[in-house]
Amino acid sequence: MVTTDLSQLIRSIPDFPKKGIVFKDITTLWKDKDGLKGAFNELYGFIEGKHIDKVVGVESRGFVFGAMLADRLNAGFVPVRKPGKLPAMTLKENYVLEYGVDAVEMHEDAIEKGDKVLIHDDLLATGGTMEAACKLVEKAGGEIVQISFLIELAFLKGRDKLSKYDVRSLISYDSE
Amino acid sequence: MVTTDLSQLIRSIPDFPKKGIVFKDITTLWKDKDGLKGAFNELYGFIEGKHIDKVVGVESRGFVFGAMLADRLNAGFVPVRKPGKLPAMTLKENYVLEYGVDAVEMHEDAIEKGDKVLIHDDLLATGGTMEAACKLVEKAGGEIVQISFLIELAFLKGRDKLSKYDVRSLISYDSE
Repeated sequence: MVTTDLSQLIRSIPDFPKKGIVFKDITTLWKDKDGLKGAFNELYGFIEGKHIDKVVGVESRGFVFGAMLADRLNAGFVPVRKPGKLPAMTLKENYVLEYGVDAVEMHEDAIEKGDKVLIHDDLLATGGTMEAACKLVEKAGGEIVQISFLIELAFLKGRDKLSKYDVRSLISYDSE
Repeated sequence: MVTTDLSQLIRSIPDFPKKGIVFKDITTLWKDKDGLKGAFNELYGFIEGKHIDKVVGVESRGFVFGAMLADRLNAGFVPVRKPGKLPAMTLKENYVLEYGVDAVEMHEDAIEKGDKVLIHDDLLATGGTMEAACKLVEKAGGEIVQISFLIELAFLKGRDKLSKYDVRSLISYDSE
């Protein structure tokens, strides 16, 4: 369920971070207390009633609703970050970008075997980052119960990479 | 009030991010659901009962408890980030590091004149980043009600830079 009000709180910024990209700026939703609460309640509604041991948030915009979800679900919070930012021993997954390769890391002791996991990020675009995050969680022995996003750029078909999971998004765009 | 249990959930990592630094790794507290909840309840206790319009979280570890605080206080959430990461028009503040200069940014429309603000970051070290974040908030017309940290490295005396504010920290270290 998407209310028009929530999507109206997202600001489109042309040519950020580079020419030709229309960036969906969610900080205008975050700063609005009713927008923040409203979006959070919808995201929580996707997973309410399920047992979750760990919420994984993808750096860094995924930390915001990820942390709120961990609190409400009485779960722990685990960050997935860009390489070199986590201080202890990590698991690492590469993923392919349009031009080149990037990677994400997670502490190798962040997830215990059998942990029920919700992974959250702000944006589903091509799905590469989330697919890598899923591999990290499964390498560590976690069981992915749900993947949630605030925004889905449906025209980029990132959902195809995540077809074996329960994927939810709150605000979906069919075109730029 | 600091419980021994909470500080025992912080992991010390020698020589990260560079030789000679002992990094306080809070991800071991975050992943522990009782640690996350316990620390959050203490941070919330510092500000409970005060009216807050916006919680400002400092990138990126400050986003976690910052977002949880915004939710519990029925406030909006505002990120302070490293340069170039926020897509719209920003205010910028430089600050001096041991070797060189760094900067933080905030969207210029993130805070409204007269907003009551809580600023949160995970770590108070020399205080330079937080001092710059305070300047951003005040430039935008916000009134800083409290500054809170999960961890304070008291031997670095960062608190001296913030002496005009109500500064709270949950876990304080008197030496490395």
